[in-house]
Amino acid sequence: MSEQDNYQVQFQPIGKRLVVEAETSLYEAARESGIELSSACGGEGSCGQCRIVVLAGETTPPNFDEEFILSELELQQGERLACCTYARSNLTIQVPRESLITGQRLQIAADLAASLREITPDPLVRAVNLELTPPTLEDIRPDLQRIADALAEQYGVSGLTAEPAVLRVISPAVRDLNWRFTVLLRGQEIVGVGAWDQRPLGFAVDLGTTKIAAYLVDLETGADLAAAGAPNPQIGYGEDVISRLNHVHRNAEGGRVLAAKVQETLNELLAQLLSQVGASAGQVVDACIVGNTAMIHLLLQLPVRQLAVSPYVAAVGSALTVPAAELHLDMAPGAAVYIPPCIGGFVGADHVAMILASDLDRHDKIVLGVDIGTNTEIAIRKPGMSFLTSASCASGPAFEGAHISDGMRAASGAIEKVRITDTEVQMTTIDDAPAVGLCGSGIIDVAAELYRSGLINQRGRFQKENSRVEDGRFGTEFCLVPAAQSGSGRDVVITQKDVNEIQLAKGAIHAGLQILLEATGTAPEEVAEVIVAGAFGSFLNIENALAMGLFPELPNAQFSQVGNAAVIGAKWMLISQAARRRAEKIAAGTTYNELTTYPKFARKFAMGMLFPDE
Amino acid sequence: MSEQDNYQVQFQPIGKRLVVEAETSLYEAARESGIELSSACGGEGSCGQCRIVVLAGETTPPNFDEEFILSELELQQGERLACCTYARSNLTIQVPRESLITGQRLQIAADLAASLREITPDPLVRAVNLELTPPTLEDIRPDLQRIADALAEQYGVSGLTAEPAVLRVISPAVRDLNWRFTVLLRGQEIVGVGAWDQRPLGFAVDLGTTKIAAYLVDLETGADLAAAGAPNPQIGYGEDVISRLNHVHRNAEGGRVLAAKVQETLNELLAQLLSQVGASAGQVVDACIVGNTAMIHLLLQLPVRQLAVSPYVAAVGSALTVPAAELHLDMAPGAAVYIPPCIGGFVGADHVAMILASDLDRHDKIVLGVDIGTNTEIAIRKPGMSFLTSASCASGPAFEGAHISDGMRAASGAIEKVRITDTEVQMTTIDDAPAVGLCGSGIIDVAAELYRSGLINQRGRFQKENSRVEDGRFGTEFCLVPAAQSGSGRDVVITQKDVNEIQLAKGAIHAGLQILLEATGTAPEEVAEVIVAGAFGSFLNIENALAMGLFPELPNAQFSQVGNAAVIGAKWMLISQAARRRAEKIAAGTTYNELTTYPKFARKFAMGMLFPDE
Repeated sequence: MSEQDNYQVQFQPIGKRLVVEAETSLYEAARESGIELSSACGGEGSCGQCRIVVLAGETTPPNFDEEFILSELELQQGERLACCTYARSNLTIQVPRESLITGQRLQIAADLAASLREITPDPLVRAVNLELTPPTLEDIRPDLQRIADALAEQYGVSGLTAEPAVLRVISPAVRDLNWRFTVLLRGQEIVGVGAWDQRPLGFAVDLGTTKIAAYLVDLETGADLAAAGAPNPQIGYGEDVISRLNHVHRNAEGGRVLAAKVQETLNELLAQLLSQVGASAGQVVDACIVGNTAMIHLLLQLPVRQLAVSPYVAAVGSALTVPAAELHLDMAPGAAVYIPPCIGGFVGADHVAMILASDLDRHDKIVLGVDIGTNTEIAIRKPGMSFLTSASCASGPAFEGAHISDGMRAASGAIEKVRITDTEVQMTTIDDAPAVGLCGSGIIDVAAELYRSGLINQRGRFQKENSRVEDGRFGTEFCLVPAAQSGSGRDVVITQKDVNEIQLAKGAIHAGLQILLEATGTAPEEVAEVIVAGAFGSFLNIENALAMGLFPELPNAQFSQVGNAAVIGAKWMLISQAARRRAEKIAAGTTYNELTTYPKFARKFAMGMLFPDE
Repeated sequence: MSEQDNYQVQFQPIGKRLVVEAETSLYEAARESGIELSSACGGEGSCGQCRIVVLAGETTPPNFDEEFILSELELQQGERLACCTYARSNLTIQVPRESLITGQRLQIAADLAASLREITPDPLVRAVNLELTPPTLEDIRPDLQRIADALAEQYGVSGLTAEPAVLRVISPAVRDLNWRFTVLLRGQEIVGVGAWDQRPLGFAVDLGTTKIAAYLVDLETGADLAAAGAPNPQIGYGEDVISRLNHVHRNAEGGRVLAAKVQETLNELLAQLLSQVGASAGQVVDACIVGNTAMIHLLLQLPVRQLAVSPYVAAVGSALTVPAAELHLDMAPGAAVYIPPCIGGFVGADHVAMILASDLDRHDKIVLGVDIGTNTEIAIRKPGMSFLTSASCASGPAFEGAHISDGMRAASGAIEKVRITDTEVQMTTIDDAPAVGLCGSGIIDVAAELYRSGLINQRGRFQKENSRVEDGRFGTEFCLVPAAQSGSGRDVVITQKDVNEIQLAKGAIHAGLQILLEATGTAPEEVAEVIVAGAFGSFLNIENALAMGLFPELPNAQFSQVGNAAVIGAKWMLISQAARRRAEKIAAGTTYNELTTYPKFARKFAMGMLFPDE
């Protein structure tokens, strides 16, 4: 490549300068240099999230996708999609705040877990202290043998083993510690050695498609020592699961890169947790990671081709225990990672963890568990039935802000609560910043309020006769925040298309719940409780969710929100062998219902899209 | 570094050109570029094996070590030690053939194993055929589950597992094979998958300090499919074990480099074996590697500091099963490597393999097993005793050609058989090439013949009154081949110092055997058989070995040579689980005798150095 084909690009207001090749899109270039632009489609030109403004310089002309997504005015103002734009000279680029995925609010469950009970620790790894006589010419037993003999005598442990990675540290470590040390034992296997009285720690992770939530836990007491969260760095390769699987399929190195990305972030989270409590990586002897089937495949770098095409088959669905070193995690040299089983080869380990932590398998009333996300998993517990039954609804990313004109994730400036009165629109934004868009809970509120105010009808149609309903650049719309008051300098609106997207999402969840009730012969009035889980769920205004018909009519149900129950379930399995056995029983004992093959699915879906009678 | 500090060096007759830095010795530079110069001291300037001739150019002047080892004439002729010489201009260097370790004859046991029995295969890994119905939308069981269900139904295998490395290949492989394939199973764990009716193969290795011998074996029939050998590439870092351990201790990357070197050679050997029979790496599902304790530590990159300093303690002595991937061996993705236990933390897995293959633990007479090498291991079996007892004698590298003026390994031009008549010296050289030096069996012959001819007395002193004994450049010597007829253009001689070295070696073995007999209350006449093992042992003229007093007087003993029994033992453990259990019993049931702490050791050693009465 000649030098003329490389251009310097400066990104404002970040101030980062890059050298970009002519055939690398600005989206790709930004991602490679650590600027994470928002994207739901993984750079396919279809989601419209990676908007940038070209302030100076020449680029390729707008393509078909951009002309479809961007208004003429926006194009005139230099607005472009980074994934469709290529430099043709040195450039100055403005990155609007809503196009960045950093700074996003990451909710971890600590404050919300109060509603879930504590369990008694029963960890797989334990720590025992040893004080040994050093070798002499008369006693040249190998180091492992010397430790094995002492463990057998003092703790009744027989058949001691250690992997090479552990053997590599034992001999120098015990000499450094003058033969007075702690052995970290998983059954009869040494996981690591450390200073006298060292406490064994564990790492519990909910590996979400969008967010990663993690805990550092004292394995002996079960106490949470620290909590942290981070965006899933694979987002740059597609916000939804299928985009990421396709990326892996289309790029020879894709699987390795996506696994490395997430492993790197897990190590960063772990380092952050350890520094909060002043502990060392060598103390971390066990981990439990939950996530949906695709996230687990990507983490383990398992083949995904068969998961991405019909009939969508997992490589493995059973519980796995893999060496932490296999995942390049900086933990004790012999540490392992437990990954719970999935249900029916399809519903992920995160759902199993949610069922576990909310004790759904043990309720003595009829209880629904709903874990809302891009895929919404639902499960029903009926005390009369020996098993749980569950289903997965493709609710789509609307409640995560994607596919909505001014949708965004829960970052600064996101509208999270909305009330529409006769004269004005009242709202709360994250960080009380000027509004730039709508996050999930705001979207639910807007839909409920539009319907309550009569701005849309039961079928979700804007009532054009209402003077507040306007004709905007994308058709009929309602303006929530005029450009002059917004943080983006543009109107923040909700369009007819947006309402339709919301209806598709709620229709899927509504239909899923109805079908699961029917499939299990349950009358709606029999349901005593609905447990709503998921990071989204915890910010939900349940009253508005009911008003806009997210759930079918369940007249006698109590609603409870448990936040990110999946990470709490991961913590349970981290600290308790009994919890792992229970999770494996839950997975084996849960029937998976495929919704789309259910006879009345299409009709129920369509009905679920309607707003409920008031 | 300035450019003046880099010089071009051309090595003749190889013709290789290198750029060498001023502070890198020519030995180091040659090694880094793949020219393996002979060295017993690992570049310490003490063994005198890495001789080169400077044909043109300037170097650093000879140092103290060179002035001590090289004669004035040799120095005048440009002879130098590569490890002591540094370039000070561009150079042309002559590498004498005897300074190269390549081209060495590598004896593998195939032709010698006839004396050892065959055993019935009882392999750990088996192959089963499966033909499955592909997934459909109605049957989306995960791939592992589908295989598990079929294995349970057709073969009664329950609780199927697979490591991530195996899971990574299964899904694409079974689809490529249209769901008709072979599963390679170790117990309930999948090791790999392959084409229908694929046979599982195994890799048996004797990892010697000097040589590596390897077999490719059909695990089901136990048939040897191919055999190959290679020098241990760690030789470049020191011929003896201690030099290599010191190299690791002194170089931060030493452990990694030495492990990688040997792993690379193992992969080359395996590739060579596979290409001989047209098989693929994925078929190789199991391995057994034997070696002395240090070689095993270096292979596994275990800590060696405590093994190199008193009291010389191994990190681990028990049997290990490690993933082949841990050793970077190109085998089936889930393949494992079995490493047998060592005895008393000191006598290696190779000795256990030798005891096993020679059935030493099962003899119904009193039998000695002697495995001759740089360290000579001996074991005694007494039917009355429940255990074996063994010892290790530091016999030194004399019988491998080191520490002998014109010693060399068994390469082309090495004198391997010698007969001294009244008028001439008759000899056989390897490849019938002009003689350049003496290899082990030649050294034994020379010692025996010198004594038989009265050229040396019982104490090993040259009889100066004999006209054939001359004063040479290193003191008293006997000329075997005059310069005019030799392959090196120099006299091939044996000196007083050489005879002393031979006496030290035989003294150690002699004393070791005597002490082991005494320690077990065994009279010499009770010994019914002596089994001589080791690659060296197989070329030994037993009559001469007895004549020069390598063994104590054992009037009723039959001598049998079994060649490299260690690699045969490795093969047995590769194909048979029963053999592994027996090896573990042998290791646990063998008492280790430390010779040096035995009261009469020094006296017996001194007596053993004498040549026997005729």
